[in-house]
Amino acid sequence: MPQSNSSEVYIIGIGQVPVGEHWDQSLRDLAVRALRSAVADAGVEAPEALYLGNMLGALLSDQQHLGALVADWAGYRGIEAATVEAACCSGASALRQAYLAIRSGAHRVVVAMGAEKMTDSVNGATTAGLAMAADAEAEAAVGLSFPAINALLMRRYMHEFSLRREDFAAFAMNSHANAVGNPNAMFRKAISERAYLEAPAIADPVGLMDSAPMADGAAAVVLADAETAERLGRRGVRITGSAVATDSLALQERRDMLYLDAVAASTARALDMAGRTTDDVSFFEAHDAFTIMSILSLEAAGFASRGEACRLAAEGEVSRTGRIPICTMGGLKARGHPVGATGVYQAAEAVLQLKGQAGDCQVEGARVGVIQNIGGSGATVVTHVLEAD
Amino acid sequence: MPQSNSSEVYIIGIGQVPVGEHWDQSLRDLAVRALRSAVADAGVEAPEALYLGNMLGALLSDQQHLGALVADWAGYRGIEAATVEAACCSGASALRQAYLAIRSGAHRVVVAMGAEKMTDSVNGATTAGLAMAADAEAEAAVGLSFPAINALLMRRYMHEFSLRREDFAAFAMNSHANAVGNPNAMFRKAISERAYLEAPAIADPVGLMDSAPMADGAAAVVLADAETAERLGRRGVRITGSAVATDSLALQERRDMLYLDAVAASTARALDMAGRTTDDVSFFEAHDAFTIMSILSLEAAGFASRGEACRLAAEGEVSRTGRIPICTMGGLKARGHPVGATGVYQAAEAVLQLKGQAGDCQVEGARVGVIQNIGGSGATVVTHVLEAD
Repeated sequence: MPQSNSSEVYIIGIGQVPVGEHWDQSLRDLAVRALRSAVADAGVEAPEALYLGNMLGALLSDQQHLGALVADWAGYRGIEAATVEAACCSGASALRQAYLAIRSGAHRVVVAMGAEKMTDSVNGATTAGLAMAADAEAEAAVGLSFPAINALLMRRYMHEFSLRREDFAAFAMNSHANAVGNPNAMFRKAISERAYLEAPAIADPVGLMDSAPMADGAAAVVLADAETAERLGRRGVRITGSAVATDSLALQERRDMLYLDAVAASTARALDMAGRTTDDVSFFEAHDAFTIMSILSLEAAGFASRGEACRLAAEGEVSRTGRIPICTMGGLKARGHPVGATGVYQAAEAVLQLKGQAGDCQVEGARVGVIQNIGGSGATVVTHVLEAD
Repeated sequence: MPQSNSSEVYIIGIGQVPVGEHWDQSLRDLAVRALRSAVADAGVEAPEALYLGNMLGALLSDQQHLGALVADWAGYRGIEAATVEAACCSGASALRQAYLAIRSGAHRVVVAMGAEKMTDSVNGATTAGLAMAADAEAEAAVGLSFPAINALLMRRYMHEFSLRREDFAAFAMNSHANAVGNPNAMFRKAISERAYLEAPAIADPVGLMDSAPMADGAAAVVLADAETAERLGRRGVRITGSAVATDSLALQERRDMLYLDAVAASTARALDMAGRTTDDVSFFEAHDAFTIMSILSLEAAGFASRGEACRLAAEGEVSRTGRIPICTMGGLKARGHPVGATGVYQAAEAVLQLKGQAGDCQVEGARVGVIQNIGGSGATVVTHVLEAD
């Protein structure tokens, strides 16, 4: 095993395919584009290893074994490769494995990427596929799709804290407002509170504007050890914290369904590893697959007291100029949520923020970013802390 | 990140569910059994992380997100977990990630496991699922299932080296003879050359006895750093080499379809890392999904010259007492091939060999074992070297 100074891990390149409905591009096409773009951005010939997050390739594209396939089609035949899957946080799980591969000293340059092709399906296959992130026997089998699971969570939260639907609007409005400045976002369009309220119901009380869209997309980041990053002149953003925690897949098994234990554990561990507290965080890329998930994440992560997240949003504190900006480039709601790729988009967006290259989305003075990708309704939570060097 | 002496990685516990048709057990049942058994064998309370190899959960069990699910159902809710997929070498890919996790210093006790439920399907869904290990556009779409791909390889090999079907019999006979002594094997029954020759054709010239069976199974191994292994009194078997290499998924893209580049590269790298040559190897757990794969693996790995593997087998040199014993506990052909679990069965079997606990399957004086798990027709190859301490 080659020896390297592997105690520090840098992100030295990023690549993003605009999120959307790519009818003319297959899963492998999207993946290859993002991968080649990230490798070019890093200024290296080829990565030594590739970890690819994907959830629905088997069901919607009749293709597994994507690690080797995408490596080959991108021109990197021969390198180490594997697919990593943890439902909707497959992307961040791939990032975690890439991080560990650098830390282990096994490799100097490793790509973490995610790719998902969701729009090309019929008869609700995508929704059925996503239900495989939940417990097939306890949830999916009785009809609990993800909108339904989130409807239960949202209803219960409204009951516990005496809230109305309009109290959730600020989260959707924030994500949409932020997406306007992101050229890779699916919906670059601000929405009004009225548009939020008048949008069709998906699974009452979850409305269309509470829900992240199905989308096609692929994103990649190139990781390197400190010496390699230095040699390439590409220091700038470092991963200072990385942690994964899990919980039951089924809501019914949870201690308290409104408190995401795995969010609490992985956020605490990642911040601790970085030597940071929530007060140090410049922005938080929350997993807003549904507005209720943003809320439960903010509270379990320690950015808001329980029952207070809606007030935080209403007061503008989650916006770009607020106390804890979230979903700064549109989040899952407006950038889009190509499930296995989402966690890697979060990483690429955090890199832009920390390098001051986020354009109209820029959070002024961003130094410490937390990105959090969630599988299922909180069953796997992957949290990374990224810092400007 | 906790600091640990992570430069040496030990296997401190193993668990195997007997391979077979488990009509009364689901994918999660099988996985939980193997995991709990391995953790008990290691003498630890719980692992810190779990990497689970699986290929067909989405298609045949409507379940993904297996890492968190299996961790929870086994009683280890909260630990880090992810699924790793690289087609038929998903198991060894999980082992590779567990190895890197220990090497990185992130964890001290990590489980690598694999689980697969293949028998519970209708209308050829399992064969169609396995075809997702090949290139969906170039191979599967034109009807190339894995038996068909291996038929092309076998026919071409017979042509190039002027061989007949009976020349392949020794590989099937060896695997079956070895399985007799393995309580976890699916087919504990020796076969004659006549039985080999008279077995039904699957995809001419591939016959039933050239082909590993579809099966249900789950296996797990517990990895630990040297200090932890020492403290638990469970040193004994160490991973001294670990390497992954890839190739094109599609046969038609290969330089030479009878030479497995990724086998050559990953074997050479793993042996080099261990400071070993093929001469030092006591046994080789080859990926005998089809007899032709054993042959191509032996040749590309450097255990036989090109075109000579059949002669090696005919002379008895791949048997337990030969120069390079292969598939010592039955291999994929007779132990069975629950795809995502196979690579972990190989690891568990190598541990038994190196500890002198392989019973009737024991290779006398085994000190250095090479295990090799192959995805697709050689597109991902994961090779590990295990040594008695």
